[in-house]
Amino acid sequence: MQLSMKEVAEHMKMAAPKLAVTTCKQRNDALLLVKEALLREKEAVFAANHKDMEAAAEADIAPAVMKRLKFDEGKLTDVCKGIEQLVSLEDPLGKKDLSRELDEGLTLYRVSCPIGVIGIIFEARPDALVQISCLCIKSGNCAILKGGKETVNTNKVLFSIIHKAVIQAGLPEYTLHQATLHNEIDELLACDREVDLLIPRGSNQFVQYIMNHTKIPVMGHADGVCHIYVDKDADMQKALSVIVDAKIQYTAACNAVETILVHRDIATAFLPLLKERLKENNVLIRGTKEAADTIGCEVMEENEFHTEYLDLIVSVKIVEDKKAAIEHINYFGSHHTDCIITENDETADVFMEMVDSAGVYRNCSTRFADGFRYGFGAEVGISTSKLHARGPVGLEGLVTYKYKLYGDGHVVSEYASGKRSFHFKNL
Amino acid sequence: MQLSMKEVAEHMKMAAPKLAVTTCKQRNDALLLVKEALLREKEAVFAANHKDMEAAAEADIAPAVMKRLKFDEGKLTDVCKGIEQLVSLEDPLGKKDLSRELDEGLTLYRVSCPIGVIGIIFEARPDALVQISCLCIKSGNCAILKGGKETVNTNKVLFSIIHKAVIQAGLPEYTLHQATLHNEIDELLACDREVDLLIPRGSNQFVQYIMNHTKIPVMGHADGVCHIYVDKDADMQKALSVIVDAKIQYTAACNAVETILVHRDIATAFLPLLKERLKENNVLIRGTKEAADTIGCEVMEENEFHTEYLDLIVSVKIVEDKKAAIEHINYFGSHHTDCIITENDETADVFMEMVDSAGVYRNCSTRFADGFRYGFGAEVGISTSKLHARGPVGLEGLVTYKYKLYGDGHVVSEYASGKRSFHFKNL
Repeated sequence: MQLSMKEVAEHMKMAAPKLAVTTCKQRNDALLLVKEALLREKEAVFAANHKDMEAAAEADIAPAVMKRLKFDEGKLTDVCKGIEQLVSLEDPLGKKDLSRELDEGLTLYRVSCPIGVIGIIFEARPDALVQISCLCIKSGNCAILKGGKETVNTNKVLFSIIHKAVIQAGLPEYTLHQATLHNEIDELLACDREVDLLIPRGSNQFVQYIMNHTKIPVMGHADGVCHIYVDKDADMQKALSVIVDAKIQYTAACNAVETILVHRDIATAFLPLLKERLKENNVLIRGTKEAADTIGCEVMEENEFHTEYLDLIVSVKIVEDKKAAIEHINYFGSHHTDCIITENDETADVFMEMVDSAGVYRNCSTRFADGFRYGFGAEVGISTSKLHARGPVGLEGLVTYKYKLYGDGHVVSEYASGKRSFHFKNL
Repeated sequence: MQLSMKEVAEHMKMAAPKLAVTTCKQRNDALLLVKEALLREKEAVFAANHKDMEAAAEADIAPAVMKRLKFDEGKLTDVCKGIEQLVSLEDPLGKKDLSRELDEGLTLYRVSCPIGVIGIIFEARPDALVQISCLCIKSGNCAILKGGKETVNTNKVLFSIIHKAVIQAGLPEYTLHQATLHNEIDELLACDREVDLLIPRGSNQFVQYIMNHTKIPVMGHADGVCHIYVDKDADMQKALSVIVDAKIQYTAACNAVETILVHRDIATAFLPLLKERLKENNVLIRGTKEAADTIGCEVMEENEFHTEYLDLIVSVKIVEDKKAAIEHINYFGSHHTDCIITENDETADVFMEMVDSAGVYRNCSTRFADGFRYGFGAEVGISTSKLHARGPVGLEGLVTYKYKLYGDGHVVSEYASGKRSFHFKNL
């Protein structure tokens, strides 16, 4: 009989402390077994993926999405490289970042440990299933995984390969579980006693739904309204190429730019150049009345600056100075990734200190906001929350810590009465 | 005209980036000005506190609570010592914990920064108002403070002293704000666009109310069901003195022990001793049927082991072994602070790895779970959440980080096409 989501989550909560005490070697062995099995059983994976691709073609799915569904030799190679990189990274668990003798014989340590049980709901991308599973294995977290339905066949084969490797390496049976039914998402949201963290990936609407329907802490980003501010001291050629890259290199990504702010002093010189470059790339410009007066674009309202287009459209506004740019970004932005184009170090410093975002950039594309590009090996998502992990979330974002205190019969009353006192020596 | 809570929060959101760029010297200067003013204007504070104490006496408030309301020379000295300690701590802001060259001319830093705007709702304790304000100033966070109504007069005078010092040191006017009306709490809960974090302190019921009525992330603990497990290899004398301290040294504290688990092998030897010691200290024992059969205590049901008494009552259960103890704690506990009494290193290791709590202790009282006793100088609260900060929360729990990326016109398309590649050199 199949277990309910609640029962699975209960098993996982019991398995989590057992997974937490496994050695890094065991977890690495599991990863290497995953890699070997993927290579050995690749034809079964490709065959399952072929089925998914056929179904997608029949369903008339957009070519950009089709590309994400595909799992071929190229993706397999990338995924295996990612696993090797994960294996080579040091153990994120058991790291002491505080060792302090509070008093003779009373010693405090702060030690990294897994979060516990994580629920991850992600888009239809078979490579994401492998990456996310492997990040959880390496970081000692139990995980319930729910992938997009368009790759259900591929995911089934991939998960079976990964799960077998987990068992073979001696990790607990309930280290990983794959949910396949849509209604299991709501069941998962109700497991607030068992599940420690949810990581939803997908549309703004979907992430909001998750946040509004669970008591479990949620890590992720609801939207990515990213800005590029072109300062008066900008190198205009750099500004143009960075803006084009940030807008068109992958339009549907959360780190694509949505709003361009231009310093008034250079607006008449820069905006016509921008208009030309964006037109060449089929990007539609919408702007404030002032911007429209300068370059003849569509006029938009101030309150539309919250818009995340995820399309070949960009909002444009002329601002008085860096202060106005920073205020606009902090008010209308989503605290994801925002960039200044300037050759002026002082201006850049102020911008990078005062913009309240997970990523603040100077003279480079917002599209760099990504776990791979930051050198984290992989990411489970990008966080715009300010607590715990911020920005691309790799292994470090999947661990927490506990305080371990070792004594020899020490009691508080002796310190409260003044009979003994703390001496706080860092070890 | 008085501003609404929403308007205050909006001002604060605008002030937060300005506070974030202040120097540590400015923030320390503000703290020293607070200390000087407290000493200079102490008579005004004592007079206000006298009013609060009189009102409390008339309202027949319990002596234990009265003690917390009092602000006298002793408390003033403690608070001033705390400020000095905070001033001496290094700046928690601007710390780089990752510096990585992604490619030539493209450099990534992860830098600590304030969380932003924090709402803190705390019990009637004037010293807490000072400590919390000072932690927020040092960590560069704007804060809305709402203290218990029983100390409204003292808080008013203290806050006015602190606020003047903030202005005098050149920090933004909206660095700190004091809310005084109870209905302002609900208004604060609605400010999810402006407030980044809520820290409620108080009863389980109150914290649950906050968590269920806001979209703002909440840090804190709803309850403290702390355990002491007396292992078969325990030193019984240590066990007795640690249990007595953990139960009676401050019964109403969240880190007081509520449940004692005893290994079956020593139950008949240990339980009678425990009964005697607890009786001497007026502690009532409730236990499983098996425990009751051994020492003749009141019988309780299994599902009552979730109970946080905050009183001179303790639950007792006989367990098969360390595994059963760990499972009981992970199931019934609140992941706050749990302790093992044992002379066996191996058993202790397993317990401390597998118990899923913010604090795991060996041979010492659970009452040590406290920011001062950990040497953090002060705490804004204790977190049983697993994300961000766990356990006593001092300065480190009040900061987050941002990623800063510096380029020179770098675009992602060149990396996607293979024209350039990342080299990831840690600096």
